Amino acid sequence: MNDNTAHTPVTVIGLGLMGQALAGAFLKAGHPTTVWNRTSAKAAPLVAAGARSAPTVGDALTASPLTVVCLTDYDAVYELLDAEGVEPAGTTLVNLTSGSSGEARTAAAWAKRRGARYLDGAIMAVPPGIGTADAVILHSGPEEVFEAHAPTLGALGTVTHLGEDPGLASLYDVAGLAMMWSVLNAWLQGTALLATAGVDAVTYAPFARHIAAGVADWLPGYAEQIDKGSFPAEVSALETDARAMDHLIEESETLGVNAELPRLIKAMAARAIAAGHGGEQYPVLIEEFGKPQEG
Amino acid sequence: MNDNTAHTPVTVIGLGLMGQALAGAFLKAGHPTTVWNRTSAKAAPLVAAGARSAPTVGDALTASPLTVVCLTDYDAVYELLDAEGVEPAGTTLVNLTSGSSGEARTAAAWAKRRGARYLDGAIMAVPPGIGTADAVILHSGPEEVFEAHAPTLGALGTVTHLGEDPGLASLYDVAGLAMMWSVLNAWLQGTALLATAGVDAVTYAPFARHIAAGVADWLPGYAEQIDKGSFPAEVSALETDARAMDHLIEESETLGVNAELPRLIKAMAARAIAAGHGGEQYPVLIEEFGKPQEG
Ligand SMILES: NC(=O)c1ccc[n+]([C@@H]2O[C@H](COP(=O)([O-])OP(=O)(O)OC[C@H]3O[C@@H](n4cnc5c(N)ncnc54)[C@H](OP(=O)(O)O)[C@@H]3O)[C@@H](O)[C@H]2O)c1
Ligand SMILES: NC(=O)c1ccc[n+]([C@@H]2O[C@H](COP(=O)([O-])OP(=O)(O)OC[C@H]3O[C@@H](n4cnc5c(N)ncnc54)[C@H](OP(=O)(O)O)[C@@H]3O)[C@@H](O)[C@H]2O)c1
Repeated sequence: MNDNTAHTPVTVIGLGLMGQALAGAFLKAGHPTTVWNRTSAKAAPLVAAGARSAPTVGDALTASPLTVVCLTDYDAVYELLDAEGVEPAGTTLVNLTSGSSGEARTAAAWAKRRGARYLDGAIMAVPPGIGTADAVILHSGPEEVFEAHAPTLGALGTVTHLGEDPGLASLYDVAGLAMMWSVLNAWLQGTALLATAGVDAVTYAPFARHIAAGVADWLPGYAEQIDKGSFPAEVSALETDARAMDHLIEESETLGVNAELPRLIKAMAARAIAAGHGGEQYPVLIEEFGKPQEG
Repeated sequence: MNDNTAHTPVTVIGLGLMGQALAGAFLKAGHPTTVWNRTSAKAAPLVAAGARSAPTVGDALTASPLTVVCLTDYDAVYELLDAEGVEPAGTTLVNLTSGSSGEARTAAAWAKRRGARYLDGAIMAVPPGIGTADAVILHSGPEEVFEAHAPTLGALGTVTHLGEDPGLASLYDVAGLAMMWSVLNAWLQGTALLATAGVDAVTYAPFARHIAAGVADWLPGYAEQIDKGSFPAEVSALETDARAMDHLIEESETLGVNAELPRLIKAMAARAIAAGHGGEQYPVLIEEFGKPQEG
């Protein structure tokens, strides 16, 4: 048995697929766990595992110094916590409900008005991963609030603090998802191209993995170009890349493979070239990504 | 000094930016090197470094058992090698000119008719990288031809043989480039999103790198789903992903960040869901990537 600090009481509000996993992980780590859910039947398996089911949201909130909230959306959060008979003052809320950076900032301001400490979080994991190191959970908001509860939150997975701006967790989350889907889509594009030559997916995958990991290693260096706003063509000029992009489009079209991703790649580069950046290096495209679509 | 097998004579035809780097690497590795270029002046620095400048393409071809060709495009290759007084029979051609898989297969058939051994190649590197292990050069065509010349070709970088189909080098090349641009674009999307919260590119980059490398590690496992044609939602169902894609689009639009990449990500998933795959896992999108754009 761990010492007492590892067993801070914690409340979980929202016992959907994710909330059940969160409460289960707290219980497993030995935290006295109070739960509440609109549909109260969902609390039963957790109660069987040792949780206490609070009769009301207000009771759930006062039962522990730390309350983790995980609901469908922010509207549900206000519907429950901004209600008659619910007193958030003096407690700490960690809101792991998915939403936008704007919603997170609004919720942080609401919590402040109501006298509660507030962290906004984003879960980069699926319910079965919760409680393992693979579950990355991003937090943003006051550092001291995170530090105070990091040992408890650590029961959920690998917890990180991104900064004081409560919107950061949402932003890193969607940015990370954009990377995830982009790597997967590029891999699917390549898999489809190679399939036309009878190469199976398992044969092609290690190559795609190697390229993705290799390019990932360039990012910190390329990021320096962006922060400096200077994009010398040390490796390759955008104009040279654009010709190879045409090869990718032609190859896809000729082989009957979907060419929308190749065409988008080319369109972004073509705009940067049209803006006079053809002799510069790829990260100069930040200027195209940083502004809304033209036309 | 290495033993004689490492010093096979080699010819390089085409001394553009890339051809010069190739010839330079052969010279540096101690290979007796014959060069030819349409604009003969470009041979001068190589001759100064010990190369022999052939008076004609025909002479260049017979000077060495192995000829590496690196020209603008395949038209230039035929213009030079399918000409009067040029006899490819009995020699080995390694064509590193960029082109499509179809062009590579056509060139291999042409070489066969002319009695030459032929490998098609693709250079995944820029000229300054040639001669280092970072320069990946893909080859496809008869394995025994590759094996015979791998020690010589190894002077150029990390050389690999992908299979007998001469089109494979081109296909892996464009597939790898699609991955490169996709990782870069997703990173730029995230960098632009985080910039709206005052996070600089250098601060965000390690996160993007970590996600890209992590997702890359899933590819071999996901590839098995594709080869089996079975996509159980072990981790997450496409329908769940689609909701998070909407968050990415909304966040980008709200913050004035370009939303074309997020919208393409969503559009591909939406089509798979419309086709009845909403309860399956992401790699089921191979069916969308593997067919031409609808409409
Ligand atoms: N599941 C995942 O893989 C995953 C991964 C990362 C992030 N997330 C995020 O985690 C959050 C919860 O996801 P989930 O998978 O647990 O969803 P879920 O299974 O649909 O559960 C939704 C929860 O919200 C409650 N709820 C919704 N509207 C309510 C309202 N107006 N008043 C009171 N309670 C309300 C539901 O209560 P009832 O039981 O009474 O309906 C339920 O507890 C979402 O923001 C989701 O984006 C999920
Ligand atoms: N540079 C790179 O970063 C890079 C990277 C990967 C792959 N590649 C590929 O490597 C190949 C060569 O690229 P490069 O950068 O060396 O291009 P480059 O500097 O433009 O050189 C083109 C070469 O082709 C020759 N040529 C073109 N048309 C010809 C014709 N009709 N007859 C005879 N010779 C002709 C040129 O001769 P002249 O000197 O007489 O004009 C020159 O030697 C291309 O397929 C390119 O896609 C290049």
